[in-house]
Amino acid sequence: MTQIRGYAALAAKAPLVPFLFERRAPGADDVALDILYCGVCHSDLHQVRDEWGKSSFPMVPGHEIVGRVTAVGAKVRGFSPGDHVGVGCMVDSCGTCPSCGEGLEQYCDHGFVPTYNGVDRDGHPTHGGYSTQLVVDQRFVLRVSEQLDPAASAPLLCAGITTYSPLRHWRVGRGHTVGVVGLGGLGHMAIKFAHAFGARVVLFTTSQGKSADAQRLGADEVVISKDREAMKKQAKRFDFILDTVAAPHDINTLLNLLKRDGTLTLVGVPETPHPSPAVGSLIFGRRQLAGTLIGGIRETQEMLDFCAERGIVCDIELIPAQRINDAYERMLNSDVKYRFVIDIASLRS
Amino acid sequence: MTQIRGYAALAAKAPLVPFLFERRAPGADDVALDILYCGVCHSDLHQVRDEWGKSSFPMVPGHEIVGRVTAVGAKVRGFSPGDHVGVGCMVDSCGTCPSCGEGLEQYCDHGFVPTYNGVDRDGHPTHGGYSTQLVVDQRFVLRVSEQLDPAASAPLLCAGITTYSPLRHWRVGRGHTVGVVGLGGLGHMAIKFAHAFGARVVLFTTSQGKSADAQRLGADEVVISKDREAMKKQAKRFDFILDTVAAPHDINTLLNLLKRDGTLTLVGVPETPHPSPAVGSLIFGRRQLAGTLIGGIRETQEMLDFCAERGIVCDIELIPAQRINDAYERMLNSDVKYRFVIDIASLRS
Repeated sequence: MTQIRGYAALAAKAPLVPFLFERRAPGADDVALDILYCGVCHSDLHQVRDEWGKSSFPMVPGHEIVGRVTAVGAKVRGFSPGDHVGVGCMVDSCGTCPSCGEGLEQYCDHGFVPTYNGVDRDGHPTHGGYSTQLVVDQRFVLRVSEQLDPAASAPLLCAGITTYSPLRHWRVGRGHTVGVVGLGGLGHMAIKFAHAFGARVVLFTTSQGKSADAQRLGADEVVISKDREAMKKQAKRFDFILDTVAAPHDINTLLNLLKRDGTLTLVGVPETPHPSPAVGSLIFGRRQLAGTLIGGIRETQEMLDFCAERGIVCDIELIPAQRINDAYERMLNSDVKYRFVIDIASLRS
Repeated sequence: MTQIRGYAALAAKAPLVPFLFERRAPGADDVALDILYCGVCHSDLHQVRDEWGKSSFPMVPGHEIVGRVTAVGAKVRGFSPGDHVGVGCMVDSCGTCPSCGEGLEQYCDHGFVPTYNGVDRDGHPTHGGYSTQLVVDQRFVLRVSEQLDPAASAPLLCAGITTYSPLRHWRVGRGHTVGVVGLGGLGHMAIKFAHAFGARVVLFTTSQGKSADAQRLGADEVVISKDREAMKKQAKRFDFILDTVAAPHDINTLLNLLKRDGTLTLVGVPETPHPSPAVGSLIFGRRQLAGTLIGGIRETQEMLDFCAERGIVCDIELIPAQRINDAYERMLNSDVKYRFVIDIASLRS
């Protein structure tokens, strides 16, 4: 057991405070790492505030982790001390169910073990990346190219894969017109990936002010979703729409922007359901409403390799851990372009 | 112009009454037919009662039509007087949009011309199959095998294709477990087709009494959807579920019966939306909620040929046209196994 410095919420809605805790000693299949950077995901805030009703405390959040390997267990293959690695939303899964067998551990029949706010195989609570060190089974460790800025690559582990995976699954590419709804941590990565895959990308946003930035990120067009006339002009235009907005909103209007056989995929879980879409919006275009959850380990590695090839990282604002509570408030006000990342060096000094 | 005998609603919610009207003289591309049988679809009732808000009167309903060709225009190829033919929900479409080009006229960008309660290319209202004769563009005429019972094959033109098409589109077949929700005109055909395609078929119904009949039709199992414990046991079991129930109901529970990557497809349009499903039910299984509308002409012909090969027809109750108002009331009480078909001879005598 090693004593770790972290930042934790001690109770629901309490501010995060410095927190000392222990992790297991690395086993034969484990990789130990010094955490360098950890992204701040909106789901950290949901769980710290117990908005999904499944939180346990104390809670050390963080599942967008980049670090450097310090030690590996006897059975570890492919990782050595000094390696630059990443850990995302999962630290374990059953490994034997059909989804695990297909490399889709996020849909493990027995539920994957989340990087924090979960229960590890040894019965202990899992604690995340707002901390100095991590011990993880090798199956859940990703290789991160040293050619990528390490701080800016941390959010690839959740915001990156959550948008990359559906764009790949629904085969978005050249010749497609793709909508991205919302320009936040997820939306800005969805634009980058859809653009990199060769699609024509249209951002739907409520904020007029985001237009120039969206185009810099790779959007070909920006539509203000509050403008009914502008929205009507987009009818039946889209092959695929990725909706990154978690707050309840009108998804029926978005369905009607799809071509025949188009898919609207949701990646955000609202606290209360969206208004029910009209069945006719599905039927009169053989349209599909879908959802996806992050991505499997194999695909996460594929995404990281793709990012290394193309030089894709997230747009971030680096903060010391001591600023996390303020960052949460700013995140609620959409005052971040586009992801906060904690510099874990701030916990070591 | 030929004078036709039919049954029509003269106003919203009025009972149907005998009605004399005219149809256009057959043009060069037209096929004229004597109607033999016409199925009674639930959407006839919706439109007669103006429940979808788009009805015009007088209205001669009926879009499950089987008849015999009496004359063909100069440019008609492939049909001759005496041929046994069918007409479904569509009598025209633009013919040039991408959907028409792909043989998916039901999704025509300009809207297909419905067999009744629509406006024909000549500006006249279209009138359906509760009548003695029909004149239709050859592109919308189907060949119906004389080996099939003509009365029992009439509902294939709507109830048949509406269930055949999604089962084919989502590639249902051997090794799949398929749910069918509701045992009515559509549901009983969905069971027959899913069974014929080699799937394991489970009927979800609210009526305990339908079990034996469902098994006769080809269902392997029957689950009473009101029984919460029985429903829980079905979780994550289905590759595909076809939901034929038009009344608003709980689709979230059905979504949770799907395996990862499974699809729940709706074919009924409720008057008010279903309760909104939880986004988590989509996300935590990469599930899809979809809708489809009848099928294209090419696929309708494929379905009719498949039915001829396999001897598949609908289970019907034959009625004279004079009984239509009573039949509507019985349909509302689910008192029909499983489709009323009007014997059009009753209009000739």
